[in-house]
Amino acid sequence: MKQEQGAARLPTVGDGSGLAPGDTFYREELQLAFRNRGMPLEGLQYDITPTGMHYLLTHFDIPKVDVGTWRLHLDGLVSRGLTLTLDDIRRRPAVTLAVTMECAGNGRALLSPRPVSQPWLVEAIGTSEWTGTPLRGLLEEAGLKDGVVEVLFTGLDQGVQGDELQYYQRSLTVGEAMRDEVLLAYEMNGRPLEPQHGYPLRLLVPGWYGMTSVKWLDRIEAIGEPFQGYQMTAAYRRAPTADDPGEPVSLIQVRALMVPPGIPDFLTRVRLVEAGDVLLTGRAWAGRREVARVEVSADGGRTWESARLGEPVSRYAWRSWSFPWKATPGRHSLCVRGWDSEGNVQPTEPAWNFQGMANNAVHRVDMIVR
Amino acid sequence: MKQEQGAARLPTVGDGSGLAPGDTFYREELQLAFRNRGMPLEGLQYDITPTGMHYLLTHFDIPKVDVGTWRLHLDGLVSRGLTLTLDDIRRRPAVTLAVTMECAGNGRALLSPRPVSQPWLVEAIGTSEWTGTPLRGLLEEAGLKDGVVEVLFTGLDQGVQGDELQYYQRSLTVGEAMRDEVLLAYEMNGRPLEPQHGYPLRLLVPGWYGMTSVKWLDRIEAIGEPFQGYQMTAAYRRAPTADDPGEPVSLIQVRALMVPPGIPDFLTRVRLVEAGDVLLTGRAWAGRREVARVEVSADGGRTWESARLGEPVSRYAWRSWSFPWKATPGRHSLCVRGWDSEGNVQPTEPAWNFQGMANNAVHRVDMIVR
Repeated sequence: MKQEQGAARLPTVGDGSGLAPGDTFYREELQLAFRNRGMPLEGLQYDITPTGMHYLLTHFDIPKVDVGTWRLHLDGLVSRGLTLTLDDIRRRPAVTLAVTMECAGNGRALLSPRPVSQPWLVEAIGTSEWTGTPLRGLLEEAGLKDGVVEVLFTGLDQGVQGDELQYYQRSLTVGEAMRDEVLLAYEMNGRPLEPQHGYPLRLLVPGWYGMTSVKWLDRIEAIGEPFQGYQMTAAYRRAPTADDPGEPVSLIQVRALMVPPGIPDFLTRVRLVEAGDVLLTGRAWAGRREVARVEVSADGGRTWESARLGEPVSRYAWRSWSFPWKATPGRHSLCVRGWDSEGNVQPTEPAWNFQGMANNAVHRVDMIVR
Repeated sequence: MKQEQGAARLPTVGDGSGLAPGDTFYREELQLAFRNRGMPLEGLQYDITPTGMHYLLTHFDIPKVDVGTWRLHLDGLVSRGLTLTLDDIRRRPAVTLAVTMECAGNGRALLSPRPVSQPWLVEAIGTSEWTGTPLRGLLEEAGLKDGVVEVLFTGLDQGVQGDELQYYQRSLTVGEAMRDEVLLAYEMNGRPLEPQHGYPLRLLVPGWYGMTSVKWLDRIEAIGEPFQGYQMTAAYRRAPTADDPGEPVSLIQVRALMVPPGIPDFLTRVRLVEAGDVLLTGRAWAGRREVARVEVSADGGRTWESARLGEPVSRYAWRSWSFPWKATPGRHSLCVRGWDSEGNVQPTEPAWNFQGMANNAVHRVDMIVR
């Protein structure tokens, strides 16, 4: 719903263009960075990210839900609407799946000029073991009527974005919603979801950027037209200008990240590395596709050498990589990039778009070897 | 240890004065904000902060510790040095204590000019139930020799700060180290520490700012002189200039924070509140002292009214407060402040100091009532 006529205008950030010119950041962006946490890159050492190190993005506030009164509503164009308690859902067939999740805005703050929003560098990632029941089973039990084209998911989180008062809502086509791996998840790493990850129940759509995995689920609705809400038609678009609708952002693109070697400087995070043999390590993922190759460059991206790949943690989770490097004294900027199974490779320079979506440019780590 | 002669100079941030002039932030500060997470203020609704919502500050990298080979070393001026496994420590008498922890730099980014460091606004807080064994028992078993004046704690986290290559180290006087509530903690909220909170073992010093509660403990050493390391003599000082040593930061000062009422705007976090009766709520704490009073101002700090206080969660944890407010349409900036049991009150404007330590100025929340 649009904000009502006569509602006080909310303040804007910057000059109102939506873009910030330089390499300094607004207070509003900092405020978002403190709420919406990244995974420190040394977290790449773990197959499964410790729960409290997983990235987090919340558009509005984290709802505090009383599970005693909470219900999941499944309705719309179905033969039989369902109203379910958490226990009802926990009694259904359960699946546990390790999934690498990434925010669609990861890499945004590396663009110039920069869209003013959550200013991710590269840390909006994490891999968890999620447990839940397949969505398909519930949709089949409710019975989708003829003419259903999408399934709409509504969370309990409410706020204002783009001058619209809204609950957080995203939709999926029926084909996507019925896929085997799509879960209604109630556990993360073997424990009930913490509030900030969607307690008591969230959608989990492996392979898609995180905005699709709606948290604090309130309602699932079968609908006969594509959903036109803010988070589908205004947000999460890859577009050249503010006015161009562009293309929707959907599946996670290939990306490799490196565990920063050596030790850090507190303030700049530049690395100090001892000369000699250094085993570089990290993780790579490609959403629904497979990671085919990971490459490292020690000369700023002019030449690349293949890293050794470990096994994927699961079909939808990252895999480790390693690369033995001979560190010689001086300043170095190491780069790593991934290739997916369809021949896509991370670009050396960011592909600019107005909202700063899906910037999977190569990861660079600056270091001083001594 | 000082960085060795001839080591490459590390890059600095800004003009090198250590201060940033305005209301925009450097990339290095943003980078720190993503690693070092705040507690979203709606987290004030919980007596015990969900583990993944607790604030976090790590100077260097989060070590990945193999508990099979890890040992705690207790030595120095003791009759009998101890080398302990985690199981050895878990077999000792255990205490569980709810503690509100806060970073000494909380409020730094609200200063102008601003010291360039971790740019906390007000969210560097959290309350956990910590389980561990009292440090005193171990010190008594080892036997402190005559002449011991301090106990030095060394973590496994290593890096460069202020041009010094160092492990993270802090000391306590013997009197402080022997207090009942000082724990060697191995559980947080009933589960083993997650890596980012100090796994397998951390010091916990209730009532002190968080820098004292050294994580990833490697060594505890009884020493005969006050420790002169970087984190004691250079960092964590309240001083008027870069060159003045000033005073050390130690005990947590009184602070009250408000759960932001209504719903947020995604980007600005300005609140949208419905006119009528609004119950304002929040938490207040005062470290080792007690919270005596919490007050709310609806006129920018000119007049104050007392809030109702709940019981403290523990002797060292926050207590809730509530205040019924009649919201009338228009823009409002609500303020909340706490008084401690010794008559200290939060200042209306920040008390400036060079490192931006312990800024406990009143909390303001901007909102539009409609």
